Amino acid sequence: MEAKHNDDVIGRARVTDTPELEAYYDELRTLGAGALWTVANDIEPWEPRPSSIPMLWKYDDLRELVLKSSELVTPEQAGRRVVYLVNDKRRDVSAAVGWLYTGIQVTRPGESTSAHRHRASALRFIMEGEGGYTVVDGNKITFEVNDFVITPNSAWHEHGVAPDGKTCVWQDGLDIPLVNALEANDYAVFDGKQPLDVPVNQSPLSYSAPGLIPADKVWDKPYSPLFKYSWKQVYPALLEAAKVNDGNPFDGILMHYTNPLTGGHVMQTMGASMQLLRAGEHTKAHKHTGSFVYQCAKGKGYSVIGGKRYDWKERDIFCVPSWVYHEHVNLSGTEDACLFSFHDLPVIEKLGLYQEKAYPENDGHQVLD
Amino acid sequence: MEAKHNDDVIGRARVTDTPELEAYYDELRTLGAGALWTVANDIEPWEPRPSSIPMLWKYDDLRELVLKSSELVTPEQAGRRVVYLVNDKRRDVSAAVGWLYTGIQVTRPGESTSAHRHRASALRFIMEGEGGYTVVDGNKITFEVNDFVITPNSAWHEHGVAPDGKTCVWQDGLDIPLVNALEANDYAVFDGKQPLDVPVNQSPLSYSAPGLIPADKVWDKPYSPLFKYSWKQVYPALLEAAKVNDGNPFDGILMHYTNPLTGGHVMQTMGASMQLLRAGEHTKAHKHTGSFVYQCAKGKGYSVIGGKRYDWKERDIFCVPSWVYHEHVNLSGTEDACLFSFHDLPVIEKLGLYQEKAYPENDGHQVLD
Amino acid sequence: MEAKHNDDVIGRARVTDTPELEAYYDELRTLGAGALWTVANDIEPWEPRPSSIPMLWKYDDLRELVLKSSELVTPEQAGRRVVYLVNDKRRDVSAAVGWLYTGIQVTRPGESTSAHRHRASALRFIMEGEGGYTVVDGNKITFEVNDFVITPNSAWHEHGVAPDGKTCVWQDGLDIPLVNALEANDYAVFDGKQPLDVPVNQSPLSYSAPGLIPADKVWDKPYSPLFKYSWKQVYPALLEAAKVNDGNPFDGILMHYTNPLTGGHVMQTMGASMQLLRAGEHTKAHKHTGSFVYQCAKGKGYSVIGGKRYDWKERDIFCVPSWVYHEHVNLSGTEDACLFSFHDLPVIEKLGLYQEKAYPENDGHQVLD
Amino acid sequence: MEAKHNDDVIGRARVTDTPELEAYYDELRTLGAGALWTVANDIEPWEPRPSSIPMLWKYDDLRELVLKSSELVTPEQAGRRVVYLVNDKRRDVSAAVGWLYTGIQVTRPGESTSAHRHRASALRFIMEGEGGYTVVDGNKITFEVNDFVITPNSAWHEHGVAPDGKTCVWQDGLDIPLVNALEANDYAVFDGKQPLDVPVNQSPLSYSAPGLIPADKVWDKPYSPLFKYSWKQVYPALLEAAKVNDGNPFDGILMHYTNPLTGGHVMQTMGASMQLLRAGEHTKAHKHTGSFVYQCAKGKGYSVIGGKRYDWKERDIFCVPSWVYHEHVNLSGTEDACLFSFHDLPVIEKLGLYQEKAYPENDGHQVLD
Repeated sequence: MEAKHNDDVIGRARVTDTPELEAYYDELRTLGAGALWTVANDIEPWEPRPSSIPMLWKYDDLRELVLKSSELVTPEQAGRRVVYLVNDKRRDVSAAVGWLYTGIQVTRPGESTSAHRHRASALRFIMEGEGGYTVVDGNKITFEVNDFVITPNSAWHEHGVAPDGKTCVWQDGLDIPLVNALEANDYAVFDGKQPLDVPVNQSPLSYSAPGLIPADKVWDKPYSPLFKYSWKQVYPALLEAAKVNDGNPFDGILMHYTNPLTGGHVMQTMGASMQLLRAGEHTKAHKHTGSFVYQCAKGKGYSVIGGKRYDWKERDIFCVPSWVYHEHVNLSGTEDACLFSFHDLPVIEKLGLYQEKAYPENDGHQVLD
Repeated sequence: MEAKHNDDVIGRARVTDTPELEAYYDELRTLGAGALWTVANDIEPWEPRPSSIPMLWKYDDLRELVLKSSELVTPEQAGRRVVYLVNDKRRDVSAAVGWLYTGIQVTRPGESTSAHRHRASALRFIMEGEGGYTVVDGNKITFEVNDFVITPNSAWHEHGVAPDGKTCVWQDGLDIPLVNALEANDYAVFDGKQPLDVPVNQSPLSYSAPGLIPADKVWDKPYSPLFKYSWKQVYPALLEAAKVNDGNPFDGILMHYTNPLTGGHVMQTMGASMQLLRAGEHTKAHKHTGSFVYQCAKGKGYSVIGGKRYDWKERDIFCVPSWVYHEHVNLSGTEDACLFSFHDLPVIEKLGLYQEKAYPENDGHQVLD
Repeated sequence: MEAKHNDDVIGRARVTDTPELEAYYDELRTLGAGALWTVANDIEPWEPRPSSIPMLWKYDDLRELVLKSSELVTPEQAGRRVVYLVNDKRRDVSAAVGWLYTGIQVTRPGESTSAHRHRASALRFIMEGEGGYTVVDGNKITFEVNDFVITPNSAWHEHGVAPDGKTCVWQDGLDIPLVNALEANDYAVFDGKQPLDVPVNQSPLSYSAPGLIPADKVWDKPYSPLFKYSWKQVYPALLEAAKVNDGNPFDGILMHYTNPLTGGHVMQTMGASMQLLRAGEHTKAHKHTGSFVYQCAKGKGYSVIGGKRYDWKERDIFCVPSWVYHEHVNLSGTEDACLFSFHDLPVIEKLGLYQEKAYPENDGHQVLD
Repeated sequence: MEAKHNDDVIGRARVTDTPELEAYYDELRTLGAGALWTVANDIEPWEPRPSSIPMLWKYDDLRELVLKSSELVTPEQAGRRVVYLVNDKRRDVSAAVGWLYTGIQVTRPGESTSAHRHRASALRFIMEGEGGYTVVDGNKITFEVNDFVITPNSAWHEHGVAPDGKTCVWQDGLDIPLVNALEANDYAVFDGKQPLDVPVNQSPLSYSAPGLIPADKVWDKPYSPLFKYSWKQVYPALLEAAKVNDGNPFDGILMHYTNPLTGGHVMQTMGASMQLLRAGEHTKAHKHTGSFVYQCAKGKGYSVIGGKRYDWKERDIFCVPSWVYHEHVNLSGTEDACLFSFHDLPVIEKLGLYQEKAYPENDGHQVLD
């Protein structure tokens, strides 16, 4: 079991309140002040303390309702026609976990939104449909199921589905709650649709070459010049890596989507990853700082998060809060399973706040509550 | 005046609720979901939206109460004997502004605290006294009035005053609210006092040489190896710079305390600065993202923050929230004035969230409310 | 034509020698000194001054001789059985151009070398054969024609061909002349063959995913973790890029092989590139600092280098010295042509010595001498 | 003694020439080629191999001749009136050691040079005089004895002495030989004298504050914004550091002049250092890659370089070639001694070529030849 920390030690606040102290506190209060020792033990926890709880959103439950939104409101009315997923403990900030927002957006053939931008960063993971596209800073990007697409901090963007396509559904991920909390978000509407400055898919066709960078392109943005990561390249890469690597005991074959110009996360405030759980794989449990939203991209299995089991299959979405133990299981003995995730690791890492701990008992596996 | 943004445009949510929609929302709610368009305009503001208000804490009001704490509780009982300053709109997170905590700590001759460490970063700015010291990672650092001292993320630290010293008062600055919000804070108590591994003041005596770095020291920490910035070096440097620079229209002669190994901020999550307002200087107003806590280190004057005037003199503390216009005035026509500040610019900058705007009217000066 | 610089101006040495001065020079010479003005104009040229000349090595001429070496000496006797290519003006330092060495190595089925390492960096570009491999720091890497392989600074390496393979020929590139000139080269012999620590091709199978990096691998080396860049990935990437880019006026579709963890050159002292000249493409001429060795990987054409035409086809090797005008022509109207190159751009760029100039006349095309 | 490496091992070339091979070599030669095994052991040394020898230039010998140059030629005729010091083994490239040039420049009161710039970087160390100044990119910098001044890659610069000053003598250091070798040097003459764009000494007055950086200055150059490092700040800093540090066994208290914005070397291709040898200090011997030119700035002593003793006192200049053992001795038992040096460590380090070895015998001290 976890170490119990005791506040009855030197170095923690252990003041017994008295009438004199109470009067003192009142006096401080009138001056916009307080006595630190009355709050110290609360604001200085022994270990990281998450405010979210683990949650699972089953796509079977949500799909009908998501599609129904396309009958209830138009994209023009709604701005974006999205059902968002909200953590029971984070309703006040509209977050799915920690400071991360996620939602499911639906767009019908021939529909398209107007362009906008915001200081918050955004990403998409494609769930259903054909003929979908996004336009990022004048570059039209077409996408397919399980593709991962970014629309970074302050980049103009808009989405749509070709008239001869099929209704598209994708998961949005944004750090709106974080950027609001940091009191730095903004929003602007583009007057109409963006002009298409460059050939369709210029970004992925220029920057998807493994270990090759165009010699004559200048890129001065703080995010990846690669706007789309194609499942048809990503999945084979996972299979190749699985041939020659044991993988991580906690995560199987885990790869981060990266900015090919830096090797770092795709955007400044959110990262994303794809992991492959081999047939029958049952990882060990660990916990670490950082908040994660997962979507099952392939296969079926379950995760034990904070001692509870959450079963998932393709398109189900779930979250793992900061500093909560978690382990993943592929329920198939013959097929691999893949979990997409996005997270705030760029924030946690850049601010020096990452720490990790392996589950110390029971051969690394949690006992179900 | 500021541009008014109108939500009645394409690209913003403009849905009129109906009974059918209400029923739909109820259904979503049961699944841990919601319709984005019901919250979108609120969570995506047109401009950064601060949650704090400007506040001023006059040292004349607080000094007696701060000293009184040394009669009411011992350092052992209190952990740290500190009066903390709290923003009227941020009492829930014990913050002075944004996600920054500040307090005033008092230590009497011969007193010393036990050592501890936490993931949150801390800094001190010395207000009164003689013979004070801090011990950071085994290096004892002595300090004087207006010195600036850091005790970074996860560094062991403890404070005290020599038996033949005079009662010391200093301002503490920490990012406890931020690190709690990011669900990453922790705390540990050192068993007793740290052994003094190296000569007193090794850090400042090794790393304070202008433009010189010890060739044979290895430093692998993500924060400055210089733990103290001495007023007796800082103030002359400001005077020298003022001889040959016009200074910044919004801030006079403004310098950041930096890590001499990188030229960057002193710590990963908090920076600090010192600025000199020349005799009679009245800066222009601007606003920018990032939260700031100021202390007047020298002279007297006032700041206009969000259209209100806040008068300050030596030792007064005030705050400027994110995205609130502010300008500074030195009320003396013959003496310079100096403002120390600490802030979350390292966070704002690393996450790509900095933006700035000059006050567009009245020759750059706010009209008082 | 190029601007002519005249030394008869203020700021250049213009001293007329006299008997008194001659005596003075003699006196200086005895003290290990001299008068700067006697050498200044020579050692401070108006423009970069190459010491190499352009050269072309036709594979038709060399192939027989290269293969013959495998009858004349064994790998054990020769250390490495290599015919090296040497610039007529750089025989003293065994360089093909500038400070770059290149050679053609032949290995027969079943042969393998012992392992060694050196401070100089090395790379290979595969010209012929089947079943070839290299072992870099314990990782066996198999390769095919037109693959590009690195064996970086101080990495143990050895090469061989499988017993059931076909005689392999590849081009070696090293910066031996540079590292010797910088008085920093060294050499060590491994006692026997390296143990194979990891699965065959672990490096390329782990790091060749476009925009994906293994999350759990730690890499602390100053060079690319990707040891092989496969032609079967590189060539399609060039074709993709050519679909959506106009390319560079001087180089067509030019891509640098990069370290996927940094986006920078593959090694600290040598970089490598692949470029595609579209059917009928005739680039414009420019000159820049940095020395280049080219090998034609596909197609046929010619380059005009310093006013002379050099015709090349697959496997031919040629060089472009620093600050010599050059332009490239694909002679086919229907097929693309590809040029591999390696160069010292990492050195030139890191030391702040890069400059470039477009050919200013005749619509950017040199007039043949 | 050093390990002797034997070429008679597997992995080294051990071919016995035959008439057949001789014929083969001749054939290769006609094609601009050669057999690697005929040169391999020579171009791949077991250990770094310096081309320079240690040398000492006594100022007592040179001073008269240096001053005499001011009678023999004018600055206008000479370009720069400099006596340069040249290594007996590097006369072909006008280098004092390795690829570093050094000279002694004399300027009389009222004299000034015209402005020029070059791709090579330059630095000065002031030896004698009063009223000297340099102008770097429009910023006039005044200097005194033992000050260190930089005029970086491609920065316009010119020098002079005030009419009421005293004849100034300073040491120049440049990497002309290196930049020539890399075929990248250039030269341009400024038409007349530079306009003084900013107040005198703006650079040192703005950037000499320990641990403080101007918040509002933008600096996009790849070299230090601090153009002068004043002895009156440097020497006290060495004394402070000596109080709390044992120093380096090979170098005493050794500090690098650094770019305060990066903590790195002052320029891209040359660095500089100052070291203090405490009274009676006798350092241990080591050798490392990189070439060094020293000037004694204070005191007297000797260095043992490559087994020979070289005695020095104030203003004497000497060199240590790459990979030659050296140790330093302060001959005074009561006074400290200071050695200024400049070197190519930025090159050696950035290219991954640094290595170091302590003298393994005799308690770390060389036996004099």
